[in-house]
Amino acid sequence: MVTDPQTTYADNGQIWIRFARYFSQVANMVFYAPIFRDYFWRNLEEFRADNVQYIELRSSLEGVFDLDGTVHDEEFGLQLYKNVTDEFVKAFPDFSGAKIIRSGSRNSSADKILEEVKTAMYLHKKYPNFMIGYDLVGNEAYFNPLLFYIEALLYPSMQNPPYELPYFFHAGETNWQGTSTDDNLADALLLNATRIGHGYALIKHPKLRHLVRERNIPVEVNPISNQVLHLVSDPRNHPMTALMADNFPIVVSSDDCATWEALPLSHDYYMAFMDLSGQDADLTFLKQLAINSIKYSQMEQHEKKRAMKLWQAKWDTFIKQIILEYLLDCDYNGSKCDL
Amino acid sequence: MVTDPQTTYADNGQIWIRFARYFSQVANMVFYAPIFRDYFWRNLEEFRADNVQYIELRSSLEGVFDLDGTVHDEEFGLQLYKNVTDEFVKAFPDFSGAKIIRSGSRNSSADKILEEVKTAMYLHKKYPNFMIGYDLVGNEAYFNPLLFYIEALLYPSMQNPPYELPYFFHAGETNWQGTSTDDNLADALLLNATRIGHGYALIKHPKLRHLVRERNIPVEVNPISNQVLHLVSDPRNHPMTALMADNFPIVVSSDDCATWEALPLSHDYYMAFMDLSGQDADLTFLKQLAINSIKYSQMEQHEKKRAMKLWQAKWDTFIKQIILEYLLDCDYNGSKCDL
Repeated sequence: MVTDPQTTYADNGQIWIRFARYFSQVANMVFYAPIFRDYFWRNLEEFRADNVQYIELRSSLEGVFDLDGTVHDEEFGLQLYKNVTDEFVKAFPDFSGAKIIRSGSRNSSADKILEEVKTAMYLHKKYPNFMIGYDLVGNEAYFNPLLFYIEALLYPSMQNPPYELPYFFHAGETNWQGTSTDDNLADALLLNATRIGHGYALIKHPKLRHLVRERNIPVEVNPISNQVLHLVSDPRNHPMTALMADNFPIVVSSDDCATWEALPLSHDYYMAFMDLSGQDADLTFLKQLAINSIKYSQMEQHEKKRAMKLWQAKWDTFIKQIILEYLLDCDYNGSKCDL
Repeated sequence: MVTDPQTTYADNGQIWIRFARYFSQVANMVFYAPIFRDYFWRNLEEFRADNVQYIELRSSLEGVFDLDGTVHDEEFGLQLYKNVTDEFVKAFPDFSGAKIIRSGSRNSSADKILEEVKTAMYLHKKYPNFMIGYDLVGNEAYFNPLLFYIEALLYPSMQNPPYELPYFFHAGETNWQGTSTDDNLADALLLNATRIGHGYALIKHPKLRHLVRERNIPVEVNPISNQVLHLVSDPRNHPMTALMADNFPIVVSSDDCATWEALPLSHDYYMAFMDLSGQDADLTFLKQLAINSIKYSQMEQHEKKRAMKLWQAKWDTFIKQIILEYLLDCDYNGSKCDL
């Protein structure tokens, strides 16, 4: 914890170093199998307490260990997530569930990524409604661009018949035009990404913007992350303000919220509402964001329908509560209410 | 002068107070008639030394005084600018000249602005090729929006026959969506602005963006000003990066460059080149900016033709010089030259 983060971590490169260290600091602690179960259960609890009813989580799936030295494989990790999710949904039927995106690291070798893609195909085939696809994470500016892994990433579509492994690439998490991070955005789209993580650079690429709109590819926007990692200081300059105003398919996400001790999602919603919208934005803005998050999820149609129904009931209750509070407030103050 | 401007002037509102004080501090000094002549002559000299060959200048035209207490009217101010410009062009035929935009203040009364618009019409009619139109300047967030002056600003078009007084409105100099400053942009376009000053907010308004492109209305971008006045910290987040990449009609301007002791224009070109373009931008970016500044000027066709010829000759010389320097450098180092 530092009191002057702007000075201590003066730019995106410096804060990334500290940010990356966080993960190695906590990894050993949470990857011990019994703890990992509790950890993920608590994760779901906190999301639910934050009024989030469904999540899609990126995870490496690797590295869960037991005290006898066993390091479990990816399928073990996936099953652990699945079991905990199933139990949680049973315990809390108002929670719609979770799905997993298997995420590799941009500093791996091309061979390693090819193995991961193959495993991801296997897991996606075996658990099609839980393991929903593949992504690559890590500092785009310091590690390899998507192009470096092109053979691995094209592997599924080169099979006979082609295998459709959905991609959820982090891409274009930069404000620096013409860099390889910037190019990642083009490659993510050329690789038929199902959804784009960050896509911060999208605003500067008219052709890619056109493509995103035409294919209706949702972009996951992470307002707090972008500020913490020095992409933007005053979030009113966030490029997604323009794309949101232009009705692009945007969902608000929270990236690595635990790292900066933000709430699971509502702090990011708050920032989106205060800064990424206009001064004249109202409840309809928040409502649209919530609807988008279901609409652009990877739930199946019947799951979406059920989730929307659940959400609509919660929304209606929320609105009724607000109105009630307002009425009580009027009564208490003896003031006139214009409802 | 402060050593920590980010702390001393923490936001746009605070730096505007200091910024506005600058003008009252220097006004008395430069508005004394004989000094004002020298001041404007020196102005032109500095622009020429900075390789700028033509300018369009905003001025109130008011307040030039003599020691006997006479405060001269706007026509006196305009004639002074015209005489100095004519002399300067005679002395330096490689300079293409200057034209004046009469700019009123956003904190004036509606009656005062109506008088100014009437005078502007009179001066525009009498000096059509020198006094090119009208604008309103000052802090959009603290003073009146364009709508406040709607009767005055519609006055020319309400005449029989309508009089066409070109408007060069400062509008949308904000990153705060949904404010009255934001709305100014819409009003500037509804009032048929010939050119827009700043237009920082344009990116967030798809309909206005469409209008600007359709009507080919140039936007004057002032990169250093926007940073100094806390609109944007990292200029790679400047919204004009996106509009430039999308081939919008952009000209780079320097707002109040003297205030922050920047060069007349080249520092703003430098910032545009380094930050508002991509890492892969090259000479063609700078060339297009220079061409735009002639293309979107208010020069008449024959003047533009002459200015372009002058500019082309200077550009060619510059390119030849660079090549020559590079060749000499190769020779000196005994290294191989790939030309």
